[in-house]
Amino acid sequence: MGTIQVASVPNLTTALTGPLLELERHILDRQPAIEHWFREQWRKTPAPFYCSVDLRNSGFKLAPVDTNLFPGGFNNLNPAFETLCIQAVQAATERVCPTAAKILLIPESHTRNLHYLESVASLVDIVGKAGFEVRVGSLIQDLSAPQKIDLPSGRQLTLEPLRRTKNRLHLADFDPCSVLLNNDLSDGRPALLENIEQPVIPSPNLGWWSRLKSSHFNHYRDVAQEFADLVEIDPWFFDPLFRNCGEIDFMKREGEDCLARNVDVLLKAIQLKYDEYKLDRKPFVVMKADQGTYGMGVMSVHSPDEVYVLNRKQRTKMAASKGGQLVSKVILQEGVYTFENWDGAACEPVVYMIDHFVVGGFYRVHNARGDDESLNAPGMEFRPLVFAQPCNAPDTSLDPDANVNRFYAYGVVARLALIAAAREAAL
Amino acid sequence: MGTIQVASVPNLTTALTGPLLELERHILDRQPAIEHWFREQWRKTPAPFYCSVDLRNSGFKLAPVDTNLFPGGFNNLNPAFETLCIQAVQAATERVCPTAAKILLIPESHTRNLHYLESVASLVDIVGKAGFEVRVGSLIQDLSAPQKIDLPSGRQLTLEPLRRTKNRLHLADFDPCSVLLNNDLSDGRPALLENIEQPVIPSPNLGWWSRLKSSHFNHYRDVAQEFADLVEIDPWFFDPLFRNCGEIDFMKREGEDCLARNVDVLLKAIQLKYDEYKLDRKPFVVMKADQGTYGMGVMSVHSPDEVYVLNRKQRTKMAASKGGQLVSKVILQEGVYTFENWDGAACEPVVYMIDHFVVGGFYRVHNARGDDESLNAPGMEFRPLVFAQPCNAPDTSLDPDANVNRFYAYGVVARLALIAAAREAAL
Repeated sequence: MGTIQVASVPNLTTALTGPLLELERHILDRQPAIEHWFREQWRKTPAPFYCSVDLRNSGFKLAPVDTNLFPGGFNNLNPAFETLCIQAVQAATERVCPTAAKILLIPESHTRNLHYLESVASLVDIVGKAGFEVRVGSLIQDLSAPQKIDLPSGRQLTLEPLRRTKNRLHLADFDPCSVLLNNDLSDGRPALLENIEQPVIPSPNLGWWSRLKSSHFNHYRDVAQEFADLVEIDPWFFDPLFRNCGEIDFMKREGEDCLARNVDVLLKAIQLKYDEYKLDRKPFVVMKADQGTYGMGVMSVHSPDEVYVLNRKQRTKMAASKGGQLVSKVILQEGVYTFENWDGAACEPVVYMIDHFVVGGFYRVHNARGDDESLNAPGMEFRPLVFAQPCNAPDTSLDPDANVNRFYAYGVVARLALIAAAREAAL
Repeated sequence: MGTIQVASVPNLTTALTGPLLELERHILDRQPAIEHWFREQWRKTPAPFYCSVDLRNSGFKLAPVDTNLFPGGFNNLNPAFETLCIQAVQAATERVCPTAAKILLIPESHTRNLHYLESVASLVDIVGKAGFEVRVGSLIQDLSAPQKIDLPSGRQLTLEPLRRTKNRLHLADFDPCSVLLNNDLSDGRPALLENIEQPVIPSPNLGWWSRLKSSHFNHYRDVAQEFADLVEIDPWFFDPLFRNCGEIDFMKREGEDCLARNVDVLLKAIQLKYDEYKLDRKPFVVMKADQGTYGMGVMSVHSPDEVYVLNRKQRTKMAASKGGQLVSKVILQEGVYTFENWDGAACEPVVYMIDHFVVGGFYRVHNARGDDESLNAPGMEFRPLVFAQPCNAPDTSLDPDANVNRFYAYGVVARLALIAAAREAAL
């Protein structure tokens, strides 16, 4: 795993860090009350099995922009915290499948993405070390025999053909008690997973075939307000404004007026907040598919006019999300600048949770992207920079922006998104 | 905390490692089945809140010799695994006191032992970082105002006078929801703790005023047999033989015949096992108080005659255990050589658990003690050597005696003692 870099915290390349410091101070001062509040939340709505949250940190705002309930990237976590992941899996399985012994992992079907397969291998390691027999069953339709894949890390992953007998999923010689889904079902809910008698975790209902980002951020808005009341700070410091549009057809250019109107409303709302806090920045809006993941169909716009002048390439990009789904619904989200900077490159934190435990994270570092662009983009410039310290060890004897306390703040904001996801899952 | 050494695993200075390797191999091969079995055990009898277990490793045998339900020594754990302790405390409190927000910690009353107070400070840190308001209430009777103690680590610990109003324990301005006991109650069960309305964790019934080592090792014998059936290996490889005597008065020399007789029986039983496995070692027996801790009143004997020739100093030592309790009951336990060696000094592993999670450990290193003596003895020669790797991350791709796998084996055997403690607590 030669690409892993362990380092300290990226620089914040902005002078506008006053509000963030304020947020960090509010969080640190109220840490026991915050944790008590989180414990209440998990009793009301249990956390999903696992989750990763993309954050953006502009120095004046720290907010989630994407919440993934079938996370990849486990190979990018700090190896020193694998022990934390193992323990969290043990705690999580006690709650969701207490008598499980054999677990079947169902990953994404794109077998050429070695980064993703490294993540699957890491997940297999973690679940195995937590004390389960774990094997990987693939949804790939033309897989007729086990396929061994040699990974750059030196590990080997075996994908086996998934079989179904009556209502039981299994492999040729492996009858699992539980199914762990690591496939976000962007292509829809496969018939193979319908009416399975084993518990399937997380529920296939949380796949992108049915989930909407706008629904998630609706829940998030409520959570942010409740948390803001608790820590006595404006929720805007950790809640990105958003609006959503009805049906859009980018290729036929249907729905553009609605988009432009909403971009305009949103830009003005952001400007009002910038004025309130005397932030000398140009507002921007991120336009993305309301369903789906993987950073496809994501675009930053700085004025309503830009909606009308998208070129063919941009339209094609917006019109196709992962799995070839046509983008019909769009979410417009307040753009949050990233002013975290590593070695001259823009970076953004990604925080990982297993059950309600924050188990680590990494920075997504992208040389070729600006501070107002999504960094979750394909390309060789992507580098992971692992969190050097854990996110669950705040130290009140240090400054609010000391490294461990910044990581703690990341974990707090990421868990707000996790609560929103838990509320989605509870419906 | 300048005394902490992080290093790899001590050397096993013996050629007799065949059986240990065999035990480690059996454990590693059956890891998923073992963890499944542990999960079943915790469902039947929940683990105590925390626990430390002293192990002895002779290369041909790996066995617990003492199980502490009110552990000190948290300051000796690897700082890199504090995050694991924090997460384990979070998981544990969810089960035993789900709505707690404020926790009152009651430590031992010997305030001159700075090592112990460092452990209390570490425990305060861990519980605080886990998200609780935690303060320390002392049982010291003449403490009339808060006492601040500066510790060698640079930390400061505040002991506050414990108060009781009706059936509620509290401090002057702190009304806790739960009480965390870190006092082993060797002196008896204080009236102050009777009929408290808050939950007291662990139960004062588990204090040394009522607990018997022989009762613990009776439970352990059952657990060891069940585990031996699971891993298909002779339980003797991880179960020390023992016998106990009735009332002994060392000063009046009453009960000596019974002691000598039982030492003789035990030495012969050990010799039979040594013969069975062709182990060319001299058997010995450890004689210790059936109640109490802290390594006082512990003595190694190699023949029944030694019981009759104890000198006055040895008698005095055996007659007084911690808190000045007279030793009246004695347990005779198979002596397990320690052939772990660090820098020429004998050492033995101490494994820490919070709830049922193994969170780390350290080696007790003692320059002035032999491989057939207790290393839990006062003196400047004691040095902690922290476990460099976690105990919950076995790696089946490595040899059974690779470091992570040896640490895993420690954690497995320590958890067998934890099950025995859980069964004691359930009665």
